[in-house]
Amino acid sequence: MSFGMDSLPLYAQVASALASDIAAGSLSPGAQLPSEEGLTDRFGVSRATVRKAVEHLLAGGLVEIRRGRGTFVSEPKIRQELTELSGFVEDMVALGRKPTARLIEKRLVAADTTVAKQLGLAPGTKVYRIKRVRIADGVAMSFDETYLPLDIGNKIVRNDLEADPIFALLEGKCGVPLINAEYQLEAVTAEEQVASALGIPKGSAIFLVERTSYTEGFRPIDYEKLYYRGDLIKFVTRLSRRTRPRA
Amino acid sequence: MSFGMDSLPLYAQVASALASDIAAGSLSPGAQLPSEEGLTDRFGVSRATVRKAVEHLLAGGLVEIRRGRGTFVSEPKIRQELTELSGFVEDMVALGRKPTARLIEKRLVAADTTVAKQLGLAPGTKVYRIKRVRIADGVAMSFDETYLPLDIGNKIVRNDLEADPIFALLEGKCGVPLINAEYQLEAVTAEEQVASALGIPKGSAIFLVERTSYTEGFRPIDYEKLYYRGDLIKFVTRLSRRTRPRA
Repeated sequence: MSFGMDSLPLYAQVASALASDIAAGSLSPGAQLPSEEGLTDRFGVSRATVRKAVEHLLAGGLVEIRRGRGTFVSEPKIRQELTELSGFVEDMVALGRKPTARLIEKRLVAADTTVAKQLGLAPGTKVYRIKRVRIADGVAMSFDETYLPLDIGNKIVRNDLEADPIFALLEGKCGVPLINAEYQLEAVTAEEQVASALGIPKGSAIFLVERTSYTEGFRPIDYEKLYYRGDLIKFVTRLSRRTRPRA
Repeated sequence: MSFGMDSLPLYAQVASALASDIAAGSLSPGAQLPSEEGLTDRFGVSRATVRKAVEHLLAGGLVEIRRGRGTFVSEPKIRQELTELSGFVEDMVALGRKPTARLIEKRLVAADTTVAKQLGLAPGTKVYRIKRVRIADGVAMSFDETYLPLDIGNKIVRNDLEADPIFALLEGKCGVPLINAEYQLEAVTAEEQVASALGIPKGSAIFLVERTSYTEGFRPIDYEKLYYRGDLIKFVTRLSRRTRPRA
């Protein structure tokens, strides 16, 4: 076997060739990887080398084991831009995916310390809490908790929250323009509520985005906790170096 | 008991009062929470209510169980700005923490498909790989894999990589100014190598930052995989709404 990469160990050459097939699309997302026999034949290497190559692809996330069924090419993570304030529906439409939602709850609750602080209210103040599962092309992508001040929430909850994006309702029906938002990004593992809403095992990787959106006059009007499936999404951005005096 | 928040259920009032103590610093990070007896006495509520309040604080991450020792106030996560290209040492100094590093490996390796793509090289090209544990105030914060093209790597690896930040070496000794970088942010769980380097259990939440830094002429010169402890760090940024025509 020679791939013009003789400086790589054999298993890495096999892994690299398979990664190229995946990148080129001849092995497409969701496709089953050829059998060990097929791979030993194709590359003329030992079964141990094939196994090590597949382990390498597994570690890199390019393929995944579906229990009892075999090894499959992973669906690539959605690459979501983190460059401007945008909502789930806007994001998914920009990515060419069809967004839907499942409403789990909408009710009045007393703001706890965190919600109160984010919305600039006293703890215990009544706010609306909306819980939804956000779906793209039929796949549950994120579990969202949205907290709205009473006056705004009263207008929002009258609408069909499985059909109408809250950002669109805020800017349209409520006449509350969004100006900007503070984002806090964390990596956590899924607890019971989130795991069950997303249909994933407890302990799965979760990308938690806490977002407080502001309207004019620096007024916070929407505090969200967005629990994205870590295996389905990555956020991308580009940052510039601050110009410093040369040492 | 009354906290002026009578609309909150009892357990939430207790949780909120304890959260306020934590926010105010009368219960400081690392301090042990008072016993159940102490809390039932102080708030005049049942043991079941105290337990539910503590569960609420646990779910929110404000307190944590240290096995066999009790419940303690969590150290707050480091809030790291995600607004400009900066290195670990710069970030920690800006946060008032003392950065150090432990060098695990520096060696020549053949670039795999991902590394090659990020550095604009052919797969199999020799590159330098540097593995370090980055430490702040004595605590291992992240495990970093750095990949450098051969010509730049040759200059970098001659230095003391436990003392000298690579960004400072690039811009100083190598005369290679950093212009900007592409960031890919993911939530994953810790596999063996990362867990062992950071001294955390396998399966812990990890904030994975892949960063490709560019110098002049759009030339990529540094590709990194930064595995931050999810329980120790959050990234914060502020994004503006794109101005849209009103509906």
